[in-house]
Amino acid sequence: MYTVYGDLRSGNCYKIKALMDLLEIPHQWQFIDIFKGESRQPEFLAKNPNGRIPVLQTPDGDYLCESNAILFYLAEGSSWIPEGRLERARMLQWMFFEQYSHEPFIATSRYWITLLGQADRFAREIADRRSGGEAALKVMESHLQTHDFFTGDAPGIADIALFAYTHVADEGGFSLSPYPAIRRWIDRMEALPRLRTMKQITAQEPRQ
Amino acid sequence: MYTVYGDLRSGNCYKIKALMDLLEIPHQWQFIDIFKGESRQPEFLAKNPNGRIPVLQTPDGDYLCESNAILFYLAEGSSWIPEGRLERARMLQWMFFEQYSHEPFIATSRYWITLLGQADRFAREIADRRSGGEAALKVMESHLQTHDFFTGDAPGIADIALFAYTHVADEGGFSLSPYPAIRRWIDRMEALPRLRTMKQITAQEPRQ
Repeated sequence: MYTVYGDLRSGNCYKIKALMDLLEIPHQWQFIDIFKGESRQPEFLAKNPNGRIPVLQTPDGDYLCESNAILFYLAEGSSWIPEGRLERARMLQWMFFEQYSHEPFIATSRYWITLLGQADRFAREIADRRSGGEAALKVMESHLQTHDFFTGDAPGIADIALFAYTHVADEGGFSLSPYPAIRRWIDRMEALPRLRTMKQITAQEPRQ
Repeated sequence: MYTVYGDLRSGNCYKIKALMDLLEIPHQWQFIDIFKGESRQPEFLAKNPNGRIPVLQTPDGDYLCESNAILFYLAEGSSWIPEGRLERARMLQWMFFEQYSHEPFIATSRYWITLLGQADRFAREIADRRSGGEAALKVMESHLQTHDFFTGDAPGIADIALFAYTHVADEGGFSLSPYPAIRRWIDRMEALPRLRTMKQITAQEPRQ
């Protein structure tokens, strides 16, 4: 069985849970409390020397890190990765966009505002990330004005990667009101069978 | 024929040139001068709404963005992407590591120090990126102490992705002296047939 080491308040960890729900992959969850420094302790660093969650342990005992690489691993052979060579690369394009142009702005702001609850203390850092976050949402909005999903006509793992922090963007101080195409895409994602939002999952499984 | 839009002083653009050299892929290069704002003009934004180089144009006229997604596209079917499912995901793990935990520290410092030549003006920002860059190099050093390359026994596109900014880390103020395993890996990379360093390429092809 798979084991996931993570904390579902993290969008990067949520991605893995969401895909495992969608693909009905049996797994166990090992809660890692980053606020207690558990991701920086030797036992965890042996699994991921970079000290970040999530980490996937395969049934063979191998460890795999980086949320979007884990999505790729779990989804190989399923309809969540498109078949065409260009489409597969474009899926990765959006996943690298998510990690470089989206997460460092929206997820980081959410961390300070909602997870730490210290918006005042980090006011300058949050302000510094405002324009980058809005720019990422504009790029997404532009794409979604003419596409239902990020790769083709069906949802793929690029959609999961981008959904993770976008559907809780308000917790990072980013309103989705100016982005109607993003809001329609979120509705489409939330309508998928077995897709649970982060709020739904953490309410049901608080120690994950 | 492929067209690449980019600037070879950028490590992200260098990656594409290096792989095309290694795989002997015919292409033309369209120089985009980011210092003149050319990546923010409407003609370029039509190719990449995110306003970043490099962009690949395929022979069919499709555009693909994000350096590591372009590497994946170009290398599909070659020995530069490993065959095993876990190994392929681990390759992506290192490529996401590169974009999230390496590039924002080492490449960004290099941009201020060497490309802009404004180390004094950006002294605070450069200092803020010091520990993140050293942490990334330590993770690489640890891996390379027991492996010749980042995925398996042969070089792959994860090696190209990480080589790009690591082999010019000194231009970002990061000395590789404390990292002997990284230096031996750089020697192995530079010994590959047709591999040219960034300095060699930009000396030979200054308007690329």
